[in-house]
Amino acid sequence: MIDDADVWAHIDALAKPKRSLGRLEEIAVRLARTQGRIDPRTRPRRIVLFAGDHGCVAAGVSAWPSAVTGMMVGTILAGRATSNALAAAHGCDLRLVDVGVMGARPEDPPAFYRDARIAEGTANLADGPAMDAAQFAAAWEVGADEADRAVDDGAALLIAGEMGIGNTTPAAAITMLLAGASVADAVGRGAGADDAVLAVKTRVVEAAVARALREADPVAAIASVAGYEIVAMAGFFARGAERGATLLLDGYVATAGALIAERLAPGTVDAMIAGHRSAEPGHGAALAQLGLEPLLDWGMRLGEGSGALVALPLLDAAAAMLGDVARLDAIGAERAD
Amino acid sequence: MIDDADVWAHIDALAKPKRSLGRLEEIAVRLARTQGRIDPRTRPRRIVLFAGDHGCVAAGVSAWPSAVTGMMVGTILAGRATSNALAAAHGCDLRLVDVGVMGARPEDPPAFYRDARIAEGTANLADGPAMDAAQFAAAWEVGADEADRAVDDGAALLIAGEMGIGNTTPAAAITMLLAGASVADAVGRGAGADDAVLAVKTRVVEAAVARALREADPVAAIASVAGYEIVAMAGFFARGAERGATLLLDGYVATAGALIAERLAPGTVDAMIAGHRSAEPGHGAALAQLGLEPLLDWGMRLGEGSGALVALPLLDAAAAMLGDVARLDAIGAERAD
Repeated sequence: MIDDADVWAHIDALAKPKRSLGRLEEIAVRLARTQGRIDPRTRPRRIVLFAGDHGCVAAGVSAWPSAVTGMMVGTILAGRATSNALAAAHGCDLRLVDVGVMGARPEDPPAFYRDARIAEGTANLADGPAMDAAQFAAAWEVGADEADRAVDDGAALLIAGEMGIGNTTPAAAITMLLAGASVADAVGRGAGADDAVLAVKTRVVEAAVARALREADPVAAIASVAGYEIVAMAGFFARGAERGATLLLDGYVATAGALIAERLAPGTVDAMIAGHRSAEPGHGAALAQLGLEPLLDWGMRLGEGSGALVALPLLDAAAAMLGDVARLDAIGAERAD
Repeated sequence: MIDDADVWAHIDALAKPKRSLGRLEEIAVRLARTQGRIDPRTRPRRIVLFAGDHGCVAAGVSAWPSAVTGMMVGTILAGRATSNALAAAHGCDLRLVDVGVMGARPEDPPAFYRDARIAEGTANLADGPAMDAAQFAAAWEVGADEADRAVDDGAALLIAGEMGIGNTTPAAAITMLLAGASVADAVGRGAGADDAVLAVKTRVVEAAVARALREADPVAAIASVAGYEIVAMAGFFARGAERGATLLLDGYVATAGALIAERLAPGTVDAMIAGHRSAEPGHGAALAQLGLEPLLDWGMRLGEGSGALVALPLLDAAAAMLGDVARLDAIGAERAD
């Protein structure tokens, strides 16, 4: 293993003015740390999109109906969603895993689709627990298995993305539970909630968190306000870190998965890099809880791993600097700085 | 031609929550504008590195000796500099053009090298004009010819980079002359000046600008404080814009070239996107003069086009969003936002 000082010593010896790549150098140090090596790899890389529906949509927490989850799954399978476009632009492998979508399954899906549906959406967390312990374990295991497959296929860097109408509601509850955010900070407009929807969402989240806090068992508490795709991302992160991969985080919902992973598998955070800070007001609190400084702060809030995909090549640049630049002494010059 | 409203209408119809990619959407609109089309291309792309030396290094304006320019040219030709590493990471073609390096020419240079040396460095601008009108025209023409070659080879996006010990001194003078920056704002530490070097640099720049302001002819005024690689970048930008390419700007020295291009070929700025805001204090004033908002603000100050190369794939993401994402109505869903 290496420590940060080794990486800084390497960077400071390169054929360029010292510290002249500013923030990119700090990111390179973090990237090296996630893999424990001075020449971390960012290729091959894979994004796994976990899709699931949410019973709480029936309570009126979202501007969009649950049916849109299945429609967007179809768009992703057809290669026409934002995540496909960005993954293709940056040479990132993509898989889609149904862990809990409502309604019909796709006909003749492509090879990058996996049916691991646990239920047709979670139960409505406005009325009771979103899932039970067995469902939580099943979702976690799907995610962990996806991380194993990715690393077995050679991936050095993993992104988890999600598709699930209503999923900023469980993300808000998890951020309150695990990052101590207030309900006002945690609940945002998601994919376009108006004031009326926002008021419903706030009441639903507040009540669900109050109920979760009465659970004695921490896993039961988390499960009661979670979503299948969020728990699957948590399992994906925990196993990915165990396997030595770099984890590049997307936005609010993915970071809720990261909070669960770090709570249940402490140390997972050491493998994480935050791709961006999203427009959702609670995301800052979640990142602060994890001690992560995001690469971009661009007001993105799309999901599907899109923010992580936008940020991904910034890590390629950091890796290229670490691995492919000559030392100043190798070119016969002496440091003047 | 298209206008911004056409691009926004296209983006707002895509299968994602409206405006959910935040800043990336604004960048996409700008990118579309630079090429006058709703589906701008970012590939193929080329970086041309212009190298030149500066007589003012003899006045003590730099921490590094002029010989380092030639050493770094050798490192770039060997494929081991930061610019090579970043260009390779992002699939960007690279050329190196000597417009004014001091000392021996490289032996057996690779095909991406061009010898277009105008002189062995500029004259010392602490003592008199850095170059005359004929030299200015020659440097401009080398740059313009490089833009023609790049576009003829299919490049849709151009980056100009530079290598030249001492070149933040002419960049500071140009920023004072063309962006109205004060000497305190314009003169920074470049590649590592200490307080003593900074004091010399400040006096030299102030005197050179005072002399330039007494020139009646605007080109003579600019030429008197410029550098060959800076003027070549200006010609490269002006011709690149004429030919319909997107121009992605690097840091302080490249932006000085952009200021010259916009002054002598007004409208060139419409093709420009600022890759980053550098650590040099004058860069903000230069970008403000051009009305450009940088993609990144990461405290980079290396040169060689490195900051533009780091930012480059952010434009790939913008282009992918514009060109490769389905419309919401095409997937059978209705807007809820």
